[in-house]
Amino acid sequence: MTERLAPLTLPSPGAEGVCTSIEEFHDWWAQRHAAGRFEVTQIPFDRLDTWQFEQRTGNLRHASGRFFTIEGLQVRDGGVATRSQPIINQPEIGVLGIVVKEFDGVLHCLMQAKMEPGNVNTLQLSPTVQATRSNYTQVHRGSNTRYLEYFTGPERGTVLVDVLQSEQGAWFWRKRNRNIVVQVTGDVPVHEDFRWLTLAQIRELMRVDNLVNMDSRTVLSCMPFVDPESIQPTDEFTAALARSYGDAPALHTTGEILSWFTEAKTRCDWHARLIPLSGVANWSRDDHEIADDEQRDFRIIAVEVAAGNREVSRWTQPLLYPRGQGLAVFVARPIGGVLHLLVHARPEFGLLDSIEMAPTVQLQPGESESAAHPFLKDVATGDLGRVRYDAVLSEEGGRFYHALTRYRIVEVGEEFPIEVPEDFCWMTVRQLMDLLRHGHYLNIEARSLLACVYSL
Amino acid sequence: MTERLAPLTLPSPGAEGVCTSIEEFHDWWAQRHAAGRFEVTQIPFDRLDTWQFEQRTGNLRHASGRFFTIEGLQVRDGGVATRSQPIINQPEIGVLGIVVKEFDGVLHCLMQAKMEPGNVNTLQLSPTVQATRSNYTQVHRGSNTRYLEYFTGPERGTVLVDVLQSEQGAWFWRKRNRNIVVQVTGDVPVHEDFRWLTLAQIRELMRVDNLVNMDSRTVLSCMPFVDPESIQPTDEFTAALARSYGDAPALHTTGEILSWFTEAKTRCDWHARLIPLSGVANWSRDDHEIADDEQRDFRIIAVEVAAGNREVSRWTQPLLYPRGQGLAVFVARPIGGVLHLLVHARPEFGLLDSIEMAPTVQLQPGESESAAHPFLKDVATGDLGRVRYDAVLSEEGGRFYHALTRYRIVEVGEEFPIEVPEDFCWMTVRQLMDLLRHGHYLNIEARSLLACVYSL
Repeated sequence: MTERLAPLTLPSPGAEGVCTSIEEFHDWWAQRHAAGRFEVTQIPFDRLDTWQFEQRTGNLRHASGRFFTIEGLQVRDGGVATRSQPIINQPEIGVLGIVVKEFDGVLHCLMQAKMEPGNVNTLQLSPTVQATRSNYTQVHRGSNTRYLEYFTGPERGTVLVDVLQSEQGAWFWRKRNRNIVVQVTGDVPVHEDFRWLTLAQIRELMRVDNLVNMDSRTVLSCMPFVDPESIQPTDEFTAALARSYGDAPALHTTGEILSWFTEAKTRCDWHARLIPLSGVANWSRDDHEIADDEQRDFRIIAVEVAAGNREVSRWTQPLLYPRGQGLAVFVARPIGGVLHLLVHARPEFGLLDSIEMAPTVQLQPGESESAAHPFLKDVATGDLGRVRYDAVLSEEGGRFYHALTRYRIVEVGEEFPIEVPEDFCWMTVRQLMDLLRHGHYLNIEARSLLACVYSL
Repeated sequence: MTERLAPLTLPSPGAEGVCTSIEEFHDWWAQRHAAGRFEVTQIPFDRLDTWQFEQRTGNLRHASGRFFTIEGLQVRDGGVATRSQPIINQPEIGVLGIVVKEFDGVLHCLMQAKMEPGNVNTLQLSPTVQATRSNYTQVHRGSNTRYLEYFTGPERGTVLVDVLQSEQGAWFWRKRNRNIVVQVTGDVPVHEDFRWLTLAQIRELMRVDNLVNMDSRTVLSCMPFVDPESIQPTDEFTAALARSYGDAPALHTTGEILSWFTEAKTRCDWHARLIPLSGVANWSRDDHEIADDEQRDFRIIAVEVAAGNREVSRWTQPLLYPRGQGLAVFVARPIGGVLHLLVHARPEFGLLDSIEMAPTVQLQPGESESAAHPFLKDVATGDLGRVRYDAVLSEEGGRFYHALTRYRIVEVGEEFPIEVPEDFCWMTVRQLMDLLRHGHYLNIEARSLLACVYSL
């Protein structure tokens, strides 16, 4: 086996794409905005079409038994029942796929202008294909999913990335999607909702609020096509960043990182199970929402959607509606001249394997940093370090309503300790990229932030 | 990051250990056999001491709520309830650890002569430490676990291996254990139940029926300290085997293998949940056992154990008692002069992530090879190829009663197709060794067989 478990390096020059200039992109985007009709109205649960509360369990489910279900989650800690909450159970594995192709030696991604009912601004930049299994096996009898044949057919392209990755462990029960990138060489007809963009262009667009959607970000994080040599170090930070992509010595070996992660999982003494939604304590349902009695957590609501360019033109569905904005911050510190990110082994009740690697600080909407790690309070409040990336990005608009997270990358120096609590570990960008070939390592927020790192 | 995701290479010369000759080993083993008192008697369930059937669920559980529980498993395939069965739920992560140390430049493992109630021959060769969390947090108020401080304390040795690996997906609900190897340099007092053995000695002992226990095998499989240069090729097979440990070109790249595995998981349309044991269809309980009505599957029984060298000297517990012997076969074929093993992406209802990589043929006790893959029938019946390894080895004697599996490695040539069905894939030994740094890839039977491969 000569192949190394390491990222590919593909050329990806400046923001002037061969196919689409940034001006053309903005024109196209405005056009797509104008073309799309998309009305989202909150409705009472009893106006949901093909969704109903199951008598015995209180679970909210689709008549077909597919798509997803709103059920209950019960956590037991050391054998004692603690937290319970509603959770989205979507056991099917969907496809998040990007088709890539070289034009004049430059890699381009076929990106989609896609409307989702929960998006705060309707339209966001999405992968080529974003399809649940129900979508592409057509449980809802809509039209075919465009470009799906490039990923699943016998004539599919060369697979560059193909890995199952988790989604929000706070809101989803063990959900994973297939993150897949295929490279094609033949002609690809470009539908009006799609454009070829270079990685450099997409990375530039990553700095715009609520533009590049969550599904794009996770696939992009698994596409570590960054050539460290192509980074022009303008200061110590970018020089340290460039080294972080390469073979420069890291604070910890991969063996140490894997052992640290195993240790964190072993310490974990809680277990989560699905329970009937009606068995969730301290949450209630009225005509319009399911909410916690303290009104601090998310709500489950129902909406009616009328659209022009979706697979079917009108439907109703439940959505999860968080109260306020989340926060995800990676603290980045040069160590020995190499940029390291401070990773947190973070338990999330909905994750398949209980713990994944998360940003240094990750706060659910409404949550504040605990006093357990005082050095993180300053990170959360923004009182520490130099902000290198700062944008508000949206989470999955097909399941969440107006779910926004503020993503930040904060550079710190020697004022920040290298010695960290046992559930934290410093890693280079390259080490994180290597782990992304496998599932069960980086959580969705860490992957989103890693895609932001690529844009620095 | 200069470290490669690749096995260490440590010296491990011939079977003459620096510390213990093979003759001394056999003397010690006979002594341990003579020293141990261990009586195992099947008893009716109502004579279980601190175990009882929970009224509401019918689950069989320990009074402390810890150790493990016998519950029910329900599989739904495409939404339809199919198989249900009893299953062992042991959510805690235990430690399977081997302490290693160099003597005169040769790596030695501190191995234990350990009695388990389910062992067909009482005593088997075990890791240095084999402890559930309940063991080492002393839920049962027994003595301390010997040598545990080398793995968990602040003064522990250098960690060489540290990974969570699954156990039998047919019998356990999502069980994992921490496979850990630490290297020490200081003096280690050797208790009479322990001996230092070289890897070469242990690999020789792997050829003896029911000697090296399952817990040793899984840790050994994750210790890929094989120097390809040290293998003296005596024929084409061993030459191809030596190349299979190294960087020789494999039929598939790692990327292709990971994509194949992702694809297999994506195809999987069943989901398993825990249900109350009393809800399992077509299984019944009498005074002495829980069994399926057709009497083809395993039974749950209760035993009383009287022992001299366990943490406590007398106890009762349930055990899972299979009917007959299992079979696990790796088909091995030189491809381009490099030995490849034929790996099966095999669904098992109790696995955390539904599918892991399994031997070419893996049959539960009582099961026969289906007609779906005709070329495998000949492998299962032994009508094909040249047998390179053949031994009957025991599965976990702490949970299973007389659970034996026949492990075989069968060499095939050009009569065996390179083109295989979509749920199979050819891999080199090195590729499998690289995957073992991570959990969720090789199942316990494949890991056992890989430990056998190291002994070839």
